[in-house]
Amino acid sequence: MSENKIPDIVIGRLPLYLRSLQRMQQENRIITSSQELGERLGISAAQIRKDLSLFGEFGKQGTGYNIPYLIEKIQQILHVDRVWDVVVVGAGDIGSGLARYQGFSNRGFRVAMIFDRDPLKIGAKIGNFIIQDSHNLSETIRKAGIKIAMIAVPSSEAQTVANQLIKGGVRAILNYAPISISVPPHIQIQYIDPSIHLQRMTYYLE
Amino acid sequence: MSENKIPDIVIGRLPLYLRSLQRMQQENRIITSSQELGERLGISAAQIRKDLSLFGEFGKQGTGYNIPYLIEKIQQILHVDRVWDVVVVGAGDIGSGLARYQGFSNRGFRVAMIFDRDPLKIGAKIGNFIIQDSHNLSETIRKAGIKIAMIAVPSSEAQTVANQLIKGGVRAILNYAPISISVPPHIQIQYIDPSIHLQRMTYYLE
Repeated sequence: MSENKIPDIVIGRLPLYLRSLQRMQQENRIITSSQELGERLGISAAQIRKDLSLFGEFGKQGTGYNIPYLIEKIQQILHVDRVWDVVVVGAGDIGSGLARYQGFSNRGFRVAMIFDRDPLKIGAKIGNFIIQDSHNLSETIRKAGIKIAMIAVPSSEAQTVANQLIKGGVRAILNYAPISISVPPHIQIQYIDPSIHLQRMTYYLE
Repeated sequence: MSENKIPDIVIGRLPLYLRSLQRMQQENRIITSSQELGERLGISAAQIRKDLSLFGEFGKQGTGYNIPYLIEKIQQILHVDRVWDVVVVGAGDIGSGLARYQGFSNRGFRVAMIFDRDPLKIGAKIGNFIIQDSHNLSETIRKAGIKIAMIAVPSSEAQTVANQLIKGGVRAILNYAPISISVPPHIQIQYIDPSIHLQRMTYYLE
């Protein structure tokens, strides 16, 4: 099957498999099974086997999956067998948190730049980053070849920033602002939305 | 079918349906279809009909779903037909952002308190909140009847904070720290992990 035909819902599960496998690797584990992965993730073993089989043969019946090998293969499929430079727009609470975030290492990403439009913030430092003027956003990221951005500006500015990012060559946007953004079909967009996660849990609360 | 038997993966999709329906409502829409919802979400119409049918009859063949009615029903199923008080632990960048976050209104949540252990932060204000001493975390949240918490402390402190929260009666935790937390089986846990969202998008990038 061509990779182009793989349903997006399957692609959405691969990062979850990868994260679980990397945690197992940190526990010095070598072999796992679709059953164990499924129990950790709340997904059926059959679903996991079916998802992975779309990309090839990664394990043998009865012997399970080799963890380092499967990690490498999923990293290749997801194109995170490299490190992508990511730009952060918005140097408020969330943007500053992202610039300092320790969770990108070994996941395929590193924050490369942070922008804001506030003259009081431009030129100031967050960790090792100097906050840059978002007036020059499109031009600066185009020169740097940035393809991925995280938006952490107020909702009222999010669409304008997204347009600037796309003009600058960005192809994938992770939006922290609590508002829906319109993008052309060739642009990927995802949302960080804590309410989605909270609502998934309140189902189980009385 | 008893609601207890509904797969967690289905529960995980309901908040996505709810968010799309609420956006349609903001657009003053009244009727939608599983086809339209599916196109907005990248999920098949058949999957959406199957998921919703587990909870009852919400639409009729050929006439589609009534948006306000379906919103109300999904809110009831997810127990967000009320407003839950949520506690934030950690008054750094991310915690401050959560305390000021505008995206919880109309989703079933409101931030009620924020805690930190840093003497320099305790007593200071973030928006309308006074930062409280996390030394008293378990006791304070138990008295207030808090069931939901968001962890925004450094990774090295996240497990300790989770233990305090659970001791104080919390049943659902949303963890922003980039580390896996162990909780008893009756405790719900979810992770905010930007790498998961970024990896889902890099699949589509060359």
